[in-house]
Amino acid sequence: MNRREFTLSCLGALAVAGASGAGLLPDSAAARQAQPQPAPARTGETPHIAFLLFDGMTALDMIGPATVLANSGFTVDYVWRNTGPVYAETTSDKRLGLLPTATFGDVGAADILCVPGTSNPYAQIVQPDIIEWVAHVGQRATWVTSVCTGSFLLGAAGLLKGYRATAHWTMLDELAYFGATPVRERVVRDRNRVIGAGVSSGIDFGLVLLALIHGEQTARMWQLIMEYDPHPPFDSGSPHTADPKLVEAVRSNSSGNRVPYARKSLEDAAKRLGVTVAG
Amino acid sequence: MNRREFTLSCLGALAVAGASGAGLLPDSAAARQAQPQPAPARTGETPHIAFLLFDGMTALDMIGPATVLANSGFTVDYVWRNTGPVYAETTSDKRLGLLPTATFGDVGAADILCVPGTSNPYAQIVQPDIIEWVAHVGQRATWVTSVCTGSFLLGAAGLLKGYRATAHWTMLDELAYFGATPVRERVVRDRNRVIGAGVSSGIDFGLVLLALIHGEQTARMWQLIMEYDPHPPFDSGSPHTADPKLVEAVRSNSSGNRVPYARKSLEDAAKRLGVTVAG
Repeated sequence: MNRREFTLSCLGALAVAGASGAGLLPDSAAARQAQPQPAPARTGETPHIAFLLFDGMTALDMIGPATVLANSGFTVDYVWRNTGPVYAETTSDKRLGLLPTATFGDVGAADILCVPGTSNPYAQIVQPDIIEWVAHVGQRATWVTSVCTGSFLLGAAGLLKGYRATAHWTMLDELAYFGATPVRERVVRDRNRVIGAGVSSGIDFGLVLLALIHGEQTARMWQLIMEYDPHPPFDSGSPHTADPKLVEAVRSNSSGNRVPYARKSLEDAAKRLGVTVAG
Repeated sequence: MNRREFTLSCLGALAVAGASGAGLLPDSAAARQAQPQPAPARTGETPHIAFLLFDGMTALDMIGPATVLANSGFTVDYVWRNTGPVYAETTSDKRLGLLPTATFGDVGAADILCVPGTSNPYAQIVQPDIIEWVAHVGQRATWVTSVCTGSFLLGAAGLLKGYRATAHWTMLDELAYFGATPVRERVVRDRNRVIGAGVSSGIDFGLVLLALIHGEQTARMWQLIMEYDPHPPFDSGSPHTADPKLVEAVRSNSSGNRVPYARKSLEDAAKRLGVTVAG
């Protein structure tokens, strides 16, 4: 029995008919609960998710949700401008190469767009072909999603204007340049936008998205299969819990914040999108 | 500033001199605290970690710890029998390819060996070149580690005989065939063996290992950088917390348990290792 058969077998055993994702989102305000549900995925039982790949991406941003979704019956594409490998961010001289399954030209639409992040999203938001592809697919997708600073790419593509969103904690406030309202939550949903916070939040995000699309019982099953019962050895995963000196060291040295063209690229994006940023 | 500079800059700012990993392991019994510490990594400040790659591996098992370690100044190799891509386990028709950085012949030793898992480790433990390479590198490594059912490969290589170890919860008991003592904990350390439980435990494991090698302060910094402040949307990540019906459905359909040659490959390994399994 391979994993496809396994998944189908488990789902059959569970008889999940009627399970719903309602009420399980981190955004618990009553008004938000009532937000409209997007239509079911275009392709019904096998939704198509397109992950953007790019050099310097943080692999875990994508592998977290992909582990949940690429084993749950979704059709998955890993998309880049060509079919050559991209290399994940690393300080090692040796780099892990990831192979795209499709190019920008191959994938003009998807039920779900998911954009991972990087410590330097400014290097991506100034590349027109990337942002144009994100805009094109995002405008047509049922769900528009990202993890970590992937939200900068959605933002630069005009997909977060007027939406609540999140990002890695060191770069959260910058989302205002894209006309988004920055929100410090683990997973932020606003209508059909579902946005994860920094890096490891991709696992939480993936389970939330799976529940929205295939129901809570399926997501609970995947949480059990991937043994997602986290036991961080320290309590240092958020600027609210970490040693303030550590928070300051990481914030002031954050690579994205120190890229020379960061501010200009944000200002250019804001101008292009017609966004005015206070202060 | 790239991520290498960022890491070095943060570490400088922290002045972590004297920070120690002592006392932070999940294994808190007093006797275990006193276990001997392996010597520092052979290469001093830039330990070399070799991750095994193979077709059908669960990508998150490796990407979780690799995100922590490949950005913390470690030299990382992703090793397979040749330099062609391996493909992560998926139910999608499209498969994510991962490119090795080195072959078995290239890497005869490493400070740290780390073996990821798969839903069917039985397909790996019967491949002599894989198990021989794991045994060869593992016998010489300062730290011998795995995530999920990667412990089956360590076990088949004779590296867990007489050690406490863990694995994915659906296949934990089978570790006895390798002469290991199965332990249901998130991260199990016994002397220089550090073993993570199922799939997502790789993040916890990576932080524990980083603390052992570079000290607690460095690991706390990485927990903050990767924003590892988990908020699972459900409480279904362990057989102790999930709906018992769900636990039974996943257990009885677990692909590894249903592989026809599973029992025979375990019995063959036990015979080869001189292990007698009760019952």
